[in-house]
Amino acid sequence: MTEALAPVKPIGPLTPITPYEYPLSRAAFARATKVIPSGIYGHQGPSEGCYIPQASFPLFSSRAEGTRFWDVDGNEYIDYMCGYGPNVLGYGDAEVHAAARKQAELEDVVSIPSTIMVDLAELLVETVASADWAFFAKNGGDTTTLAIMTARAATRRKKIVFVKGYYHGVAPWSQKLDYPGVLEEEVANNLTIPFNDIEALRRTLEQHAGQIAGLIAQPYMHGNFVDNELPAEGYWQAVRRLCDEHGVVLIVDDVRAGFRLDLAGSDHYYGFSADLICFCKALANGYNVSALCGRDFLKDAVSSITYTGSYWLSAVPFAAAIATITKLHRIDAPAQFARLGTRLTTGLKTAARNEAFTLVSSGEPALFYLRLADDDSLMLHQEWVAECVQRGVFITSHHNHFINAALTETDVDMTIDIASQAFSIVRKRHPLWS
Amino acid sequence: MTEALAPVKPIGPLTPITPYEYPLSRAAFARATKVIPSGIYGHQGPSEGCYIPQASFPLFSSRAEGTRFWDVDGNEYIDYMCGYGPNVLGYGDAEVHAAARKQAELEDVVSIPSTIMVDLAELLVETVASADWAFFAKNGGDTTTLAIMTARAATRRKKIVFVKGYYHGVAPWSQKLDYPGVLEEEVANNLTIPFNDIEALRRTLEQHAGQIAGLIAQPYMHGNFVDNELPAEGYWQAVRRLCDEHGVVLIVDDVRAGFRLDLAGSDHYYGFSADLICFCKALANGYNVSALCGRDFLKDAVSSITYTGSYWLSAVPFAAAIATITKLHRIDAPAQFARLGTRLTTGLKTAARNEAFTLVSSGEPALFYLRLADDDSLMLHQEWVAECVQRGVFITSHHNHFINAALTETDVDMTIDIASQAFSIVRKRHPLWS
Repeated sequence: MTEALAPVKPIGPLTPITPYEYPLSRAAFARATKVIPSGIYGHQGPSEGCYIPQASFPLFSSRAEGTRFWDVDGNEYIDYMCGYGPNVLGYGDAEVHAAARKQAELEDVVSIPSTIMVDLAELLVETVASADWAFFAKNGGDTTTLAIMTARAATRRKKIVFVKGYYHGVAPWSQKLDYPGVLEEEVANNLTIPFNDIEALRRTLEQHAGQIAGLIAQPYMHGNFVDNELPAEGYWQAVRRLCDEHGVVLIVDDVRAGFRLDLAGSDHYYGFSADLICFCKALANGYNVSALCGRDFLKDAVSSITYTGSYWLSAVPFAAAIATITKLHRIDAPAQFARLGTRLTTGLKTAARNEAFTLVSSGEPALFYLRLADDDSLMLHQEWVAECVQRGVFITSHHNHFINAALTETDVDMTIDIASQAFSIVRKRHPLWS
Repeated sequence: MTEALAPVKPIGPLTPITPYEYPLSRAAFARATKVIPSGIYGHQGPSEGCYIPQASFPLFSSRAEGTRFWDVDGNEYIDYMCGYGPNVLGYGDAEVHAAARKQAELEDVVSIPSTIMVDLAELLVETVASADWAFFAKNGGDTTTLAIMTARAATRRKKIVFVKGYYHGVAPWSQKLDYPGVLEEEVANNLTIPFNDIEALRRTLEQHAGQIAGLIAQPYMHGNFVDNELPAEGYWQAVRRLCDEHGVVLIVDDVRAGFRLDLAGSDHYYGFSADLICFCKALANGYNVSALCGRDFLKDAVSSITYTGSYWLSAVPFAAAIATITKLHRIDAPAQFARLGTRLTTGLKTAARNEAFTLVSSGEPALFYLRLADDDSLMLHQEWVAECVQRGVFITSHHNHFINAALTETDVDMTIDIASQAFSIVRKRHPLWS
């Protein structure tokens, strides 16, 4: 990540915060487990690895505003998960809400669409460098699935190259052979190469010459449970050249990083052009919409695919997306995310050093990933995270975080203070750890 | 369908309606084709067969309320497509909007869910006969995909039985071999049997003994371009018995018919119990949410599957769903749909007879399907549909229709008047057709 030389904030004396407790969250979860498989599923659930240690986390929220949410026990959090991405402007952003409400008074899901769908497509074509067109759906996975189907339809080839550690949603084709409910047939045409290894890609393309439809990848590796990895100098440019040489469709999955690094797309940020690019989370500040964008030469292939959904032409999320992109552009949100993400991670590392720990931050500052060094069991890191959460800083253990535009320098500094207190507690508990 | 002996409304003298024109729809579509593949995709698009003849249909709406919408040229329609299902209470239903707005003021997509998710799961378990639990997603296809993955995970078998003419969304596994972007591997484990043919099911189950994970079917055949077909007496009970004998998971795809026949589920309506049941369209009156419900013995299998999405815990659609189900229950909406659907189809058939045409209505009255008899080319039917649409009755040619709770007897009678006028015009144009 960018290691900007931000001034190191001196950590003054801290007022100890009483750790939060979660009786109402636990009671609600007991209800949930009766009527919902796992009680809460996905990242948000306590069965997901990111939440370890479970007992230190709240499970249900009651209200959210700006960069904060409140859990059902009334505890307040500065939230660095941002709904796992969608909260890009701040929860309940007034401009986005106003645009959505105005559209809701007119119409939402109707038998024929609103022209606001066209307005949004035009705005995306204007905003996103690789976009000659836009196709709207509901999940990030709807767009990654359409992308691989498009690559296959356009090339009449079967195989797809993935990058080791990938996540492109939950459709069977994007899962792994040993995952429950997934058939070997569904993943039989998946090839995997390491990230930042251009020779591995070259070998794979040559070995399967004429059989590879597409390569799908996140703009950089922001996976879980591993340090996030930025693209090496010239990597993407070499990938682009190889894809062109082999007639392979280059698909960027920008569901997680999209609109946080560069409104023109994360491919643009790293100096190359995708053929297809997938957006979801940050597209409409939480309103439910995703988009596949792409180049003109693939427009007919997309059109040829049978692909539709009950709510895909829903007008309210389109209105929210227009308001979101417009505001992100006006305030130059990506620059703000980089600045505040750098200030935060720099301050957190200093706070760790003050207690003789080494905190490693990786990935882009807008989506920073944290890990305590010399902690192969991950337990010390989890302890520190738990102490932060129980004092109002909502982070998770093994997933990247997200910055939103409602976050202020004061919030960041308060976060560093709380994190310092958490480091100090962990140090007292493990005086000999080094 | 139920051929209730509703009184035949005498058709009086009609005031001729000037056919609608669509210059602003056409202009917007020209914009759309530049930035969206196909301009408009899915059922709503003019490239979809249901819309033939294209020139007679509006393409973009500007406002919707109750049972009506207005297109961008200002033309008004009584809408029998209901957004292809989601409009179950009437567009912009005040109770649903109020519940959604109240929730939106609190929170929507947050890093941990609202307890309103649990409230909705509890309500579904209480309402839907086959539901011991509920799992929420965004598309109908998310729930059919989770259903077949669950069947496979629970049985450790691969094959899925489909019913000829099926539609279960657009995921590759649910498409056909010759569809663009679909691999033979993805549909290699699909078996197909005819509807209402219990011997065919028995043979298939015996032929592939120990290999079939699940059977997925709509509660009755409400496919496109064919008369819709209700289950034969005892059919579903025999299917249920065979599935039990062979350890096959019985999945009902109630995405289209759900909550229009019976709030307890269309399986309950036809006197059997599904193991898994899929809901989407009518669940929240257009707010974007879907649900897979099922029996306790499959809860662990569902929990074992990696399945999540960016907006799946979105709270506002949950609030809308609770308000929708509560109101559907209070007004006994399914009874109203059956009554008005019967009044409408009976009246339409009379109107056809008055001009010496035979109109065939099939399927359940709440989701009636129409076809003109003695019209194998389908062109006469399309002509009649076009004349209806251009006079303010929004129906389509080869897709079932939908009744919503805002529809009144007056609307139905006005519809029959307009349809009569359309039959009369078609008869004048084709005086010798019989």
